[in-house]
Amino acid sequence: MKSRILRPRNPALSAPPGTVTPPPGAVTPLIRLMAYDNDQLVEQVIQSADEVRPHLNKWPVLWVDVDGLADAHLIQELGEMFGLHPLALEDVVHTHQRSKVEDYDTNIFMVTRMVNPVEKGEKLEQVGLFLGKNFVVSFQERPGDCFDPVRDRIRKGGRRTRLANADYLAYALLDALVDSYFPLLELYGDTLDELEDGVMEATGGNAIMTQIHETKRMLYGLRHVIWPLRDALSLLSQEHDLISDDTRFFLRDCQDHVMQQLDILENYRERAAGLTDLHLSVISMRMNEVMKVLTIIATVFMPLTFIVGVYGMNFDTSLPGNMPELHWPFAYPALWGVMIVMAAGMMAFFYRMGWISLGKKEGDDET
Amino acid sequence: MKSRILRPRNPALSAPPGTVTPPPGAVTPLIRLMAYDNDQLVEQVIQSADEVRPHLNKWPVLWVDVDGLADAHLIQELGEMFGLHPLALEDVVHTHQRSKVEDYDTNIFMVTRMVNPVEKGEKLEQVGLFLGKNFVVSFQERPGDCFDPVRDRIRKGGRRTRLANADYLAYALLDALVDSYFPLLELYGDTLDELEDGVMEATGGNAIMTQIHETKRMLYGLRHVIWPLRDALSLLSQEHDLISDDTRFFLRDCQDHVMQQLDILENYRERAAGLTDLHLSVISMRMNEVMKVLTIIATVFMPLTFIVGVYGMNFDTSLPGNMPELHWPFAYPALWGVMIVMAAGMMAFFYRMGWISLGKKEGDDET
Amino acid sequence: MKSRILRPRNPALSAPPGTVTPPPGAVTPLIRLMAYDNDQLVEQVIQSADEVRPHLNKWPVLWVDVDGLADAHLIQELGEMFGLHPLALEDVVHTHQRSKVEDYDTNIFMVTRMVNPVEKGEKLEQVGLFLGKNFVVSFQERPGDCFDPVRDRIRKGGRRTRLANADYLAYALLDALVDSYFPLLELYGDTLDELEDGVMEATGGNAIMTQIHETKRMLYGLRHVIWPLRDALSLLSQEHDLISDDTRFFLRDCQDHVMQQLDILENYRERAAGLTDLHLSVISMRMNEVMKVLTIIATVFMPLTFIVGVYGMNFDTSLPGNMPELHWPFAYPALWGVMIVMAAGMMAFFYRMGWISLGKKEGDDET
Amino acid sequence: MKSRILRPRNPALSAPPGTVTPPPGAVTPLIRLMAYDNDQLVEQVIQSADEVRPHLNKWPVLWVDVDGLADAHLIQELGEMFGLHPLALEDVVHTHQRSKVEDYDTNIFMVTRMVNPVEKGEKLEQVGLFLGKNFVVSFQERPGDCFDPVRDRIRKGGRRTRLANADYLAYALLDALVDSYFPLLELYGDTLDELEDGVMEATGGNAIMTQIHETKRMLYGLRHVIWPLRDALSLLSQEHDLISDDTRFFLRDCQDHVMQQLDILENYRERAAGLTDLHLSVISMRMNEVMKVLTIIATVFMPLTFIVGVYGMNFDTSLPGNMPELHWPFAYPALWGVMIVMAAGMMAFFYRMGWISLGKKEGDDET
Amino acid sequence: MKSRILRPRNPALSAPPGTVTPPPGAVTPLIRLMAYDNDQLVEQVIQSADEVRPHLNKWPVLWVDVDGLADAHLIQELGEMFGLHPLALEDVVHTHQRSKVEDYDTNIFMVTRMVNPVEKGEKLEQVGLFLGKNFVVSFQERPGDCFDPVRDRIRKGGRRTRLANADYLAYALLDALVDSYFPLLELYGDTLDELEDGVMEATGGNAIMTQIHETKRMLYGLRHVIWPLRDALSLLSQEHDLISDDTRFFLRDCQDHVMQQLDILENYRERAAGLTDLHLSVISMRMNEVMKVLTIIATVFMPLTFIVGVYGMNFDTSLPGNMPELHWPFAYPALWGVMIVMAAGMMAFFYRMGWISLGKKEGDDET
Repeated sequence: MKSRILRPRNPALSAPPGTVTPPPGAVTPLIRLMAYDNDQLVEQVIQSADEVRPHLNKWPVLWVDVDGLADAHLIQELGEMFGLHPLALEDVVHTHQRSKVEDYDTNIFMVTRMVNPVEKGEKLEQVGLFLGKNFVVSFQERPGDCFDPVRDRIRKGGRRTRLANADYLAYALLDALVDSYFPLLELYGDTLDELEDGVMEATGGNAIMTQIHETKRMLYGLRHVIWPLRDALSLLSQEHDLISDDTRFFLRDCQDHVMQQLDILENYRERAAGLTDLHLSVISMRMNEVMKVLTIIATVFMPLTFIVGVYGMNFDTSLPGNMPELHWPFAYPALWGVMIVMAAGMMAFFYRMGWISLGKKEGDDET
Repeated sequence: MKSRILRPRNPALSAPPGTVTPPPGAVTPLIRLMAYDNDQLVEQVIQSADEVRPHLNKWPVLWVDVDGLADAHLIQELGEMFGLHPLALEDVVHTHQRSKVEDYDTNIFMVTRMVNPVEKGEKLEQVGLFLGKNFVVSFQERPGDCFDPVRDRIRKGGRRTRLANADYLAYALLDALVDSYFPLLELYGDTLDELEDGVMEATGGNAIMTQIHETKRMLYGLRHVIWPLRDALSLLSQEHDLISDDTRFFLRDCQDHVMQQLDILENYRERAAGLTDLHLSVISMRMNEVMKVLTIIATVFMPLTFIVGVYGMNFDTSLPGNMPELHWPFAYPALWGVMIVMAAGMMAFFYRMGWISLGKKEGDDET
Repeated sequence: MKSRILRPRNPALSAPPGTVTPPPGAVTPLIRLMAYDNDQLVEQVIQSADEVRPHLNKWPVLWVDVDGLADAHLIQELGEMFGLHPLALEDVVHTHQRSKVEDYDTNIFMVTRMVNPVEKGEKLEQVGLFLGKNFVVSFQERPGDCFDPVRDRIRKGGRRTRLANADYLAYALLDALVDSYFPLLELYGDTLDELEDGVMEATGGNAIMTQIHETKRMLYGLRHVIWPLRDALSLLSQEHDLISDDTRFFLRDCQDHVMQQLDILENYRERAAGLTDLHLSVISMRMNEVMKVLTIIATVFMPLTFIVGVYGMNFDTSLPGNMPELHWPFAYPALWGVMIVMAAGMMAFFYRMGWISLGKKEGDDET
Repeated sequence: MKSRILRPRNPALSAPPGTVTPPPGAVTPLIRLMAYDNDQLVEQVIQSADEVRPHLNKWPVLWVDVDGLADAHLIQELGEMFGLHPLALEDVVHTHQRSKVEDYDTNIFMVTRMVNPVEKGEKLEQVGLFLGKNFVVSFQERPGDCFDPVRDRIRKGGRRTRLANADYLAYALLDALVDSYFPLLELYGDTLDELEDGVMEATGGNAIMTQIHETKRMLYGLRHVIWPLRDALSLLSQEHDLISDDTRFFLRDCQDHVMQQLDILENYRERAAGLTDLHLSVISMRMNEVMKVLTIIATVFMPLTFIVGVYGMNFDTSLPGNMPELHWPFAYPALWGVMIVMAAGMMAFFYRMGWISLGKKEGDDET
Repeated sequence: MKSRILRPRNPALSAPPGTVTPPPGAVTPLIRLMAYDNDQLVEQVIQSADEVRPHLNKWPVLWVDVDGLADAHLIQELGEMFGLHPLALEDVVHTHQRSKVEDYDTNIFMVTRMVNPVEKGEKLEQVGLFLGKNFVVSFQERPGDCFDPVRDRIRKGGRRTRLANADYLAYALLDALVDSYFPLLELYGDTLDELEDGVMEATGGNAIMTQIHETKRMLYGLRHVIWPLRDALSLLSQEHDLISDDTRFFLRDCQDHVMQQLDILENYRERAAGLTDLHLSVISMRMNEVMKVLTIIATVFMPLTFIVGVYGMNFDTSLPGNMPELHWPFAYPALWGVMIVMAAGMMAFFYRMGWISLGKKEGDDET
């Protein structure tokens, strides 16, 4: 299972800049429109860009959310309607952008990645967000997003006073998006916990090293997503006509969350790096154990085998000096005695060397 | 024992920003109030926010200390009373904040972590601190803190002239908080000393590598707490209406302590990193020792076993050339002589190779 | 196969600065001229610098593209014609420059490296680019480049309005050049995927480590090319008379691509670094397997060999106590029984230690 | 021998800031006074702070040097006399400060560490230095310092014109102090040379790894002392009323020395890091040698032992096909021939594999 | 062979700053004087500083080149003549300076290191360079330098117009000096190529690890020389009265070369770091091979030896059940058959495990 969070863009590289080419495997768009002020709310699923037109500049906030990038024409139509820059629209369909914020005077374009709650963090999904004076247009790769709590709050009208500003809505979406990383981080944390236990038990063989490697890659990947997001948010929280002072306060809070996530990621990476050392150490210790068993067996039985070999020799015992032991009574049990003493001595030596321990103690260590 | 100093925030992520939701496992608050000027001191344990009201704006310094975050209502009441920002109050109950300072015009909000002297550094506790013109409000997760020396100094009135300013009180609390890391650092230093001895003695098996890994994690964790504190203090010691020049001097001193702690931590991390190398080297050396024992035994006894095997063959000695040695007188003791010379030669060879040493010398090295 | 992307310059070091000495192995130049406005296009392959002269200052855009650096005279003639600085011309022929941008008032000089589509990324080729008010002069090391899409767009006249500015042409060339790295990056990504599989299967022996080392070197090399390009583009997108605001927008987009490539490279390097650890771990695991086999065999057969050695001894069985077993009926099959039980016991012990597993499970791990 | 260059401060942490508490184990102070102008010099060893008073503001330069920090009263008296800040005095007695410079308007406070020539670099000693308009006050932990050359130059009056300014005296002391690190660095360099030789000879066992670890720690420690000194000196050489332009020139030179020391330290750290790799490689190579010896012995003697085992079998040779070789004449010497050829073949194989070399060559490599 | 590029300064540390003490082993100076304008050139080897005096302020450019630092008096005389600062002169004779540029109003002092072409990069030589309004004074440690091309250009008068400015001469010298590193870098590159081949062939034993370590040290050393040179040149190319705009252009080019050298060095260091991993991997792989040979031999022969041991037992075959095989006809060749089948089975097992390969394939890998 290779989760490629980051990959080079593949669309027709020779096309002139500003061309909107849907990415391979793009999904037919589902368009949701929310237009509201402090009192009223219009919520529709629409079929074409034309249905947006009647609401243009009629509401304090108009949010058009496009799920699916297969329809280049639709994207361009919306672009013209809201005055979005062709280069930004191109970035929307090139689904391997770095997180960034770009300021096009009449609107601000943000692009970043989001955990799709339907797909449970397997692959991050690109989100493009345009903030204008009285509209937010968002583009997502696939259905399913983390914006439902924001939609609920709009519907409930709980804090509508604030949500009735386009910039606060943009913040709320970004905040939901940033918070969508937390469960993913928790998942990675649990994975690391399991790996730590697994390395200690050393039951996993190479599989565990592969998992550590895979986890490292995923951590790298997520960091490459979140890191530029930090800069993007920092850019966003600077002075800008489209963003009120009040919202800037909230954006700063959002930035804090990103910082915290980077802290956690850094911590995870350090843990993952430590795991590799730990794993190599555990393997070495186990090899030590194996070698000790071999050495103990060899050291005990090699001398004994030599001795019984001696008494298997066929010297002519009738000649003087030649193996008189063979003709002594009780020589055989005596030899057994000698051999048992030798073996016991060896074992005592190994015990003193700390290679053998009594009972469970050593076993605990090595498992 | 996994001490998680840093963990992703888990409260209801979908709640709108500024919502005060007590963290899981929060403790019923104990509220302590100290109000004083140069001459008088009122010290009370109070039950509800209402008891604070009579002292509001009556004293040069009013310190309300809340130990326990279970009562969302109380926190919000205090917030309204002192004019604290909802986002800051949200940070108070989200107990996994990075250390930071935020400036809300009428008050300054600081959040950081503290060693709880009751729990002896097992888990750091979050402290939120609001500094206003004539008040300090502090929120802690659990009872027990490192502020008792400050309370004593207020009671004694020793340097009350200075403590009779809210900003100096805030500094004194921060200073006590920063100093609370020193014993923890000393503990880590002792742990590293022990680990260094343990690695040298190499008695610990995998357990020691696990301890090194655990120690590294704790050092990482503490660094992630102290590092942002440095930035926070540096921000705090800049020009601000609420902080007098005099106090700024003291804050600079406090910042020095933080720098020193980071230096020590850096040093510890380098030592811990070196320990891993040392451990792997010790394991390799020990495996070398095991292999040498095996090789010596095998090299001495394999040729001997071969020789006695030779004289165990059943060639027909009546035929010419076939094992006449078997029928020589004293051939058996002569063979023993040959074998002893061979074994001695092997041992001499190994001694010359440096694999065997006389007496304790090699033993010293390998233990 | 050693691909040296970076190498010290070797031309006559003692020559005075500003001397144009063709690099060793330079190719006879092929000169292509494109001169156009919104309506007309002149495209020629020319033989000498003189043929450029009639078009000088006659068109909004004049592009002279020189493929091959063998003709020092031609380069100097063009230099004089367009007012190019001798130091810049020297840099054009010293084919181991760092990517850089230099501002010579009347023109801007850029030098960087390009993937030659003919040679498929084996060796990067240096490109020197001069941008003046109404001209672009480009110098390449060898025939074959990634500029054909730009040429096609000029010929088609599709977006001629923009391409009819020299600064936009320069951008278009840079963009094509930057995009030429993407296929190379994809190639490296595939190589890493293969290496990851290869390391897991552990069939490659030292060859795989060599490949990892080689891949790392290539990644380093590419990074050393792209990294300074980032700074160069950032310099270029600053205020300058020769570059319009509109083009600056596009240059910013181009810079984003470079950032993205650096991100990918960083990711690849981290993966490559992880591969080394993985490889060492796999080797260690395999050695463990080998050692286990040896230890199992030795532990099972050494005691058995000792036992059969015992009953090969020639003690005089007529004397009391000497090997009466030899004269028991069915002693031989009984001994076999004892030995089988011993061997089975050993195997059970190893199974319990986790050294032997039933069937495929362990085998899966080690392959 | 654990040399702790850096350690957390231990004095009573609960004391209010600005309290002067002598460190544990402080030495009774020895106070030396030097007061001079271009013509005259008064040099005294004094017993109490009162003896300083007559010289106050009477000389262009008054240098009071206190060796030993046991007398809190004395330090406070001097502090009041010269107008030194309590926080600075507290830093003087907290003997684990980072090097720093602090500007208290009427005087500048510097604190750093010095090699005590008496104790030969075993433990660095803290030095606190106050520079005022016409005085220098220095505090040292223990008797013995590196300031004697400065004292001699004052006595000789050689360049008294310059030394007759307090700021130049402060520079001269700092310069002497910085230069005191050079012999220590030379010592560390020699240690590294010895360790490099030791690792190559591989005679030291674990001891050498411990020494490398210890050396690394000492290098880290020294770097943590010198690194902040760089910043301190850089701060000092900025514009300040108390420091003349002329002296600033000399301070810049002093800063150069510190930079050079950091360069050397960096170099040493890299060498020390390389040593660990080298050591692990040497251990691995030696294990390879041990394994080769074992494998050669086993490979030669195992087949031979098998063969002589074959002819030790007791098959009934009177039956057809059963071991007729036993009854061939000269079968025994023929078998010896076969075995010698086999052994020689094995040795030739190992020689071809490069495991055995003739004479000294391999021996050279492995020692 | 230890090449110490960097070493602490050893001259009398207690001397007052600004003292000119020749370094130990300094060479008697050879003084060369070149004075010229656009038309004329005076070139002399002179014996004393007095011979310089007649040319002072008579020419647009006066270059005094001193090879050898043994004559402190001469250096001081020249210093007074040209108005050079004592601290700078001290730096000239302290031959272990970091590269730096210092601005003494009437002149600029540069100190750096140069490859002496006579000594072929074995030890870098310090060069001190003073640039005044109409003079350049250079000090070298030993005869032999890389300035001959510059001298030739002065003599030929080819571009004398430019060289007739002191600042351009200083640039030309610096350029020659920087270019002198390129051959050294090429040498290091070749060494790395050889080491890479050597590691693959794995014939070098520990010697190769030592060489890698030595090469790393040399790369570190060179980097410590070139790195500060970058800063020095960057300082030099800023606005200064003594340096014309034209020359600044050329200095920027010189700086580019330094950047390129640092890039190459960085690349080399990464390759050297990779070599260590590669070497450890090769050692591990070879140990694997050794272990496999041992295991194969042991696994094949241990069971066989056990079997022949069985038929060497002396059970009384006249009793029922005791080794009837011994009395079967053709039992001996049948046993051989069984044993051959067993050995073949073992070999097949190892072949399937990938431990044995047919013919050259595995052999290729392991060498």
